Amino acid sequence: MGEELTEPGGGVRLYVEAALAAGAHLTPDNGQAHYLLHVMRAKAGDRLNLFNGRDGEWRARIAEVSKRSCVLECEAQISEQREAPDIWLVFAPIKKTPADYLTQKATELGVGVLQPVFTRRTIVNRVNIERMRINAIEAAEQSGRVSVPETREAVKFEKLLTQWPAERRILFCDEAGEAQPVADALRGAPEGAWAIFTGPEGGFDPSERGALRALPNVTPVSLGKRILRADTAALAALAVWQAIRGDW
Amino acid sequence: MGEELTEPGGGVRLYVEAALAAGAHLTPDNGQAHYLLHVMRAKAGDRLNLFNGRDGEWRARIAEVSKRSCVLECEAQISEQREAPDIWLVFAPIKKTPADYLTQKATELGVGVLQPVFTRRTIVNRVNIERMRINAIEAAEQSGRVSVPETREAVKFEKLLTQWPAERRILFCDEAGEAQPVADALRGAPEGAWAIFTGPEGGFDPSERGALRALPNVTPVSLGKRILRADTAALAALAVWQAIRGDW
Repeated sequence: MGEELTEPGGGVRLYVEAALAAGAHLTPDNGQAHYLLHVMRAKAGDRLNLFNGRDGEWRARIAEVSKRSCVLECEAQISEQREAPDIWLVFAPIKKTPADYLTQKATELGVGVLQPVFTRRTIVNRVNIERMRINAIEAAEQSGRVSVPETREAVKFEKLLTQWPAERRILFCDEAGEAQPVADALRGAPEGAWAIFTGPEGGFDPSERGALRALPNVTPVSLGKRILRADTAALAALAVWQAIRGDW
Repeated sequence: MGEELTEPGGGVRLYVEAALAAGAHLTPDNGQAHYLLHVMRAKAGDRLNLFNGRDGEWRARIAEVSKRSCVLECEAQISEQREAPDIWLVFAPIKKTPADYLTQKATELGVGVLQPVFTRRTIVNRVNIERMRINAIEAAEQSGRVSVPETREAVKFEKLLTQWPAERRILFCDEAGEAQPVADALRGAPEGAWAIFTGPEGGFDPSERGALRALPNVTPVSLGKRILRADTAALAALAVWQAIRGDW
């Protein structure tokens, strides 16, 4: 009477926007319905997991199947909504392929918010937020997360700093100046909400570096002497943050 | 009288195999000659940097240009050969695009040896070592390293363990068992030579995990509860190792 839907990496998990509760019925979006019915060849009675970033993870069964869509029924909660470490990644936009990669990896590494920021030396001048969002959802589904990182519209550096929430600490990856080794800086640093700032290829310009260092809760750090690409620096900083201040 | 050859990321650096010493003349390989003459449109007198992994970094000038090649002359040593942290990455082969990415990023993150290993759950059954080597050289040139990681032929897991150099410590990224958080494990761990072991999607199988844990200098560690892709886990572990035990 119905099978567990699985992929090579494990059971099928889908992110949905609707509320999840025992007995709730919901209709997957067109892409999800296509995936379930035509890629996974799901039938009525098959089972999968659902999460929405608010209600934990739920077991669901395919209650009805029509030609183009299906209805999912929530059966039981498998896990509660877990609190994740509160970490944002603020990064200068990069080209399409590295940007896809960065979004996927940062999601696996548990980032909470992806905030692209246009700096003076940023070469890429457009960010496809919809594409970022699709990549983030897919990576969240595959990584076992019960939330999807928020993908924010790109903003200018000056504007971001003007509106910066003062209590959120900044780990500033500064390739150009005096900065502590990242592990030393994080070891003694307080708990709480953080954001990692990484610049474009070539780094932040001097005025941007000055503006960042003038903020109250900023910790400038070094990621060693080798030159890291923008996406490498972002992922490395996120991994080290998770290991020392996050939930690893 | 000649220009500094530069790319958007900085001055041109080339890895060569020949010995570097004041006044030494050398001929770049065909690919490098094409790059210099036809991509960079270099002329006699232009300058670039050279390294070979042994003699530090050298300033060189293009001494002669012919139709298809050129001769480079070493002028002065700019920096001595630096000792890099002794860290290997032992990883189960992955598909082409993620493998390219892993090689590039691991090189930027300062890896010394890239050792692919076939495990029981490894799906990819061929490794293009020549392609890995080309990616590693390119990433080393761009990252400011004065060495290129050694790219070793893929071996079977059992064979690798039989020949394992006992004094080289292993950071075993174990998603399946009791393991310390990676930062805690590394903080108290000794200096010296290390290798990071990361498995394929789905992890090492139980017998492989047992064999690894039976080695004398093995530290099993956890990278948190989210499921990381094979390449994400490798890069994250390398970043954390560099931050805590390496040269960051």
